[in-house]
Amino acid sequence: MVIVLKSNIAQNSVKDLIENIRAKDLDVNVSEGHNHTIIGLIGDTSKILPEDLQSIDIVDSVKRISEPYKKANRKMHPEDSIINVAGKMVGEGMFHVIAGPCSVESEEQIIEVARDVQKSGATMLRGGAFKPRTSPYAFQGLHGEGIRLLLEAKKATGLPIVTEIMNASHLDLFDEVDVIQVGARNMQNFELLKELGHCSKPILLKRGLANTIEEWLMSAEYIMAGGNSNVILCERGIRTFETVTRNTLDISAVPVLKEKTHLPIIIDPSHATGKSALVAPLAKTAVAAGADGLMIEVHNNPAAALCDGAQSLNPKQFDELMADIKRRVEFEGKTM
Amino acid sequence: MVIVLKSNIAQNSVKDLIENIRAKDLDVNVSEGHNHTIIGLIGDTSKILPEDLQSIDIVDSVKRISEPYKKANRKMHPEDSIINVAGKMVGEGMFHVIAGPCSVESEEQIIEVARDVQKSGATMLRGGAFKPRTSPYAFQGLHGEGIRLLLEAKKATGLPIVTEIMNASHLDLFDEVDVIQVGARNMQNFELLKELGHCSKPILLKRGLANTIEEWLMSAEYIMAGGNSNVILCERGIRTFETVTRNTLDISAVPVLKEKTHLPIIIDPSHATGKSALVAPLAKTAVAAGADGLMIEVHNNPAAALCDGAQSLNPKQFDELMADIKRRVEFEGKTM
Amino acid sequence: MVIVLKSNIAQNSVKDLIENIRAKDLDVNVSEGHNHTIIGLIGDTSKILPEDLQSIDIVDSVKRISEPYKKANRKMHPEDSIINVAGKMVGEGMFHVIAGPCSVESEEQIIEVARDVQKSGATMLRGGAFKPRTSPYAFQGLHGEGIRLLLEAKKATGLPIVTEIMNASHLDLFDEVDVIQVGARNMQNFELLKELGHCSKPILLKRGLANTIEEWLMSAEYIMAGGNSNVILCERGIRTFETVTRNTLDISAVPVLKEKTHLPIIIDPSHATGKSALVAPLAKTAVAAGADGLMIEVHNNPAAALCDGAQSLNPKQFDELMADIKRRVEFEGKTM
Amino acid sequence: MVIVLKSNIAQNSVKDLIENIRAKDLDVNVSEGHNHTIIGLIGDTSKILPEDLQSIDIVDSVKRISEPYKKANRKMHPEDSIINVAGKMVGEGMFHVIAGPCSVESEEQIIEVARDVQKSGATMLRGGAFKPRTSPYAFQGLHGEGIRLLLEAKKATGLPIVTEIMNASHLDLFDEVDVIQVGARNMQNFELLKELGHCSKPILLKRGLANTIEEWLMSAEYIMAGGNSNVILCERGIRTFETVTRNTLDISAVPVLKEKTHLPIIIDPSHATGKSALVAPLAKTAVAAGADGLMIEVHNNPAAALCDGAQSLNPKQFDELMADIKRRVEFEGKTM
Repeated sequence: MVIVLKSNIAQNSVKDLIENIRAKDLDVNVSEGHNHTIIGLIGDTSKILPEDLQSIDIVDSVKRISEPYKKANRKMHPEDSIINVAGKMVGEGMFHVIAGPCSVESEEQIIEVARDVQKSGATMLRGGAFKPRTSPYAFQGLHGEGIRLLLEAKKATGLPIVTEIMNASHLDLFDEVDVIQVGARNMQNFELLKELGHCSKPILLKRGLANTIEEWLMSAEYIMAGGNSNVILCERGIRTFETVTRNTLDISAVPVLKEKTHLPIIIDPSHATGKSALVAPLAKTAVAAGADGLMIEVHNNPAAALCDGAQSLNPKQFDELMADIKRRVEFEGKTM
Repeated sequence: MVIVLKSNIAQNSVKDLIENIRAKDLDVNVSEGHNHTIIGLIGDTSKILPEDLQSIDIVDSVKRISEPYKKANRKMHPEDSIINVAGKMVGEGMFHVIAGPCSVESEEQIIEVARDVQKSGATMLRGGAFKPRTSPYAFQGLHGEGIRLLLEAKKATGLPIVTEIMNASHLDLFDEVDVIQVGARNMQNFELLKELGHCSKPILLKRGLANTIEEWLMSAEYIMAGGNSNVILCERGIRTFETVTRNTLDISAVPVLKEKTHLPIIIDPSHATGKSALVAPLAKTAVAAGADGLMIEVHNNPAAALCDGAQSLNPKQFDELMADIKRRVEFEGKTM
Repeated sequence: MVIVLKSNIAQNSVKDLIENIRAKDLDVNVSEGHNHTIIGLIGDTSKILPEDLQSIDIVDSVKRISEPYKKANRKMHPEDSIINVAGKMVGEGMFHVIAGPCSVESEEQIIEVARDVQKSGATMLRGGAFKPRTSPYAFQGLHGEGIRLLLEAKKATGLPIVTEIMNASHLDLFDEVDVIQVGARNMQNFELLKELGHCSKPILLKRGLANTIEEWLMSAEYIMAGGNSNVILCERGIRTFETVTRNTLDISAVPVLKEKTHLPIIIDPSHATGKSALVAPLAKTAVAAGADGLMIEVHNNPAAALCDGAQSLNPKQFDELMADIKRRVEFEGKTM
Repeated sequence: MVIVLKSNIAQNSVKDLIENIRAKDLDVNVSEGHNHTIIGLIGDTSKILPEDLQSIDIVDSVKRISEPYKKANRKMHPEDSIINVAGKMVGEGMFHVIAGPCSVESEEQIIEVARDVQKSGATMLRGGAFKPRTSPYAFQGLHGEGIRLLLEAKKATGLPIVTEIMNASHLDLFDEVDVIQVGARNMQNFELLKELGHCSKPILLKRGLANTIEEWLMSAEYIMAGGNSNVILCERGIRTFETVTRNTLDISAVPVLKEKTHLPIIIDPSHATGKSALVAPLAKTAVAAGADGLMIEVHNNPAAALCDGAQSLNPKQFDELMADIKRRVEFEGKTM
């Protein structure tokens, strides 16, 4: 961390600052310029937030040099992490497609969709049991019953299941779930992240609507700091001024994350755009960008879907997309 | 809600759509244009999300006309709500200043700050016991002990206390807290909102970093739908491309909310900018915009603050600001 | 266009509004709902801006249904436009790579780079002669001399040249330029767009930093309304809250534009990220998304570049990228 | 400027870098940390853009310490600038209200509005003759004739006139105009800025839709570097994700600019929100924030306005607002 001091300040207040820093088990390197003195911090600065140093009245600005995340940092763990999901490996060289409806609606629906997406080549089944909806009056999911139905679909097909948690007190219900999803709106629900750090299940951590990549990695760090290293990142579009798509897919996040972290990264083109017609072209870009997989909404009757129908493919559209995706995954030298 | 259909579509699929809508206890009004048919929905559309209708393949676009919030809507409740906080009234004509440190650090600190801000005219005490921090390695607050110390400060000064909740399972600890704060990062933690809807305490609901005013009111609606109408809204800056301030204070939110809702609205200039030098000018704009109060960070030693020191005033600066704010509140014909 | 009226308004003011609309050669279709009356406009609404109707005090909101652009609209021109650039065809089925330095610096430099990128397979040469720089003290380009050097490089290699115009009064200097570029900062310099509408040269129109896709198409419409249909669109990243990349590449723009317009669309991954390490992964996503080409900065000595060196590839890196891009273009069934 | 080098790099490449920097008439201060070497640049760094240094492969990151603007910088010019507009002083302690219609439509209209706003206390008249419109098919202003009509209104009332320029080649038409406005879309039309730097008229420089405060000051610097120091800044709302207002007024810009520059700053609440009902509350916040004036759209018949009617006040509304603004200006100890 580098601290730039204001110009024309008293020497003894600089001394005080340096003593304060040393009191936190850090060393300093002072460099005097014409107008500005610069203090470099030496040691583990991960406990220090730049905002806190910023408060000191002789400080002009603060610049972090080392990343504030350690366990998620590729520098500390140069090889790609491979996450074991019920025996299936997620990460380097493998490509996964997680497919299924926005919401679990009935046993027939989820089993039919599960069979359809499996036939087309999906490797995991998604389905919402607890649904974060902006309106308290909108359908909120079947809750425990929804998870029960997902498990029926798993029994019928063997597909591992992925479903979202919204409340740590529901954790018991997720006992047989294969991947626990943290949704965009809970990316900085630090209490939930801490709890998930104490279990050993794979966590699919979606990026928040307006969170930077660094904040996202810090949320992964919350889970990992608790002892659970099984984190899969999922980019699902960020909020911008553009309104033609529901969100703006930040495809650059894939190569940026591949440099900064060893964790796998998948793309959710369905939520990123909110439009089924854009799912296929964006899924293709995800493969080309180097993502480790896709999460795609598929519904057996999108027009009647209880939520988010606009962005769901029907099984036939999904099947066509998968045929194309398989060729592309092969082109990239990966396996599905 | 108005549904615009695509051009050149089969008449029988229009019929199907209309039947589907009628099956949801809504009536329709169909208007045929040259290129487009427009269907107006008549009845209570609050359970319907535009995204869901958007999914239907003959639909071009959907426009909501009625607001999706009811209990928070000024149309349903034209008079300003007045929230009773331990006998102090928040709302129309009254102006409140909630002041105190980012974090509760010790008994001495919180009592000293409480006495200072009371002397300057603050009407409530704030202080963080549970702190949402981006880094798992940063100080996270004193938790239950922090709340205990706030209650000591309340005993010493009589000031009602405001503190943030991050987890519904901590609710017991908030028994004697006067106002429960929901932070920006939890604005769409719907599980937490639902729980708070079942208590009767005043809730201070901060706007999320990248949430629209409509989403914010929908989060208030979550609390109110559960039976708790005691909601105070707090604007604290939104995330934009500008980096000179930590966030961008959306001062327009005050007059916009005054038109759309009957709930009180206060401004937090400390978090909105992240810089203590900007707190005073922005506090002045809040009074002028018609806000019902301010939330301001005050620390007896900002330079040594464990968090967010950069945006804290010291007691002397706060005292000077309050002298000015009092004149402005009087100018607006309000009382403090 | 659909106008939603406020509730409880006088009948005669509705009548007045309808008469006003009819006076503009438009017909109306009135539909009365429970709370709201809706007026649909029938006829050519392209001269009317929704903001203008919004002003009328009985109007609640206005929704455009037909797109405001005509000549750029795929509905009016279903087949892909193919733009002839010095005999090379840009558009459907063909893939172009425009490469070269940010700035033209010297005859040796531009000829060397031109030969290098041609050898690697680039189909056009780019180079800045007029440079928009945020600082008046930074290097602003070689101006007319820069264009002369580009023409030397064209003579040496036969590559068509692409260079940016910043001022319509310089048009004479662009006489032998093959493609005139309008930069992001001038996307809504309507005076410049009008002038370019009166020439017949291909125009490469970059998207503004914070402009929507609709605004971008309206800027294309400005050029086309003047009589010049030779417009190539270029996405170069938009401004968001994320700071790890200089801008955020909006890759969804490609499939969105392919639906809305018949104009070719290319991607500039160099400006989109500002980092040379991200150019190759993003170039790959552009091919997969269905773009018609790429614009890539290449410098023979990026570290010494007078501007934007950070985002430039050196010739060797470009050569490796091109080998990969060729395979991908072939995979997509396109030719280069 | 501070350059942070990557870790584990060759010593001789550091040497090369330092030599390169010294060749640009700058001195360096090298500080070696555990993992990172930091180089501080000493001297005039205004010609160097951080992006350019970023390109060097041994560089990790670059941080500017001194502001890149000099003539606009308060450090170089601690006292507030006072701009003389036809004998009226704009700046410290004085408060101006520039009012008038979006577009000049006819002699009767502009003279009637001019008389109305003058009676209410406006100190200057605005009116658009050249109008930047997103659509080529929308009304573009009366051009030279519009300026002629403004001058008639000036003759009738004595009010100085403010009107927008879109093309430097029109400068002759602005000979008798008192303040030349540069609109948001032309804030980075550097060619136009340079031309305006060569005249001596006051320039009202609006902030771009998505431009940072630093970029805005750099655009002021373009004008000032050419020799024209008469720049008035105008904040008119920035583009964010919020859609309830057309733009988001960045009220913090006022105190931020008051610290960074000596130039006067005014607020345009009409464009900032696009809604007439929000003009009055935001005008009040502008006075409280310390702005030097307001720019407000007033139309004698907003519902029939050819452009931007939605955000215009009628003369009666303006008169009521001015009565209130006068009291507030007096409260702030300023004169109008």
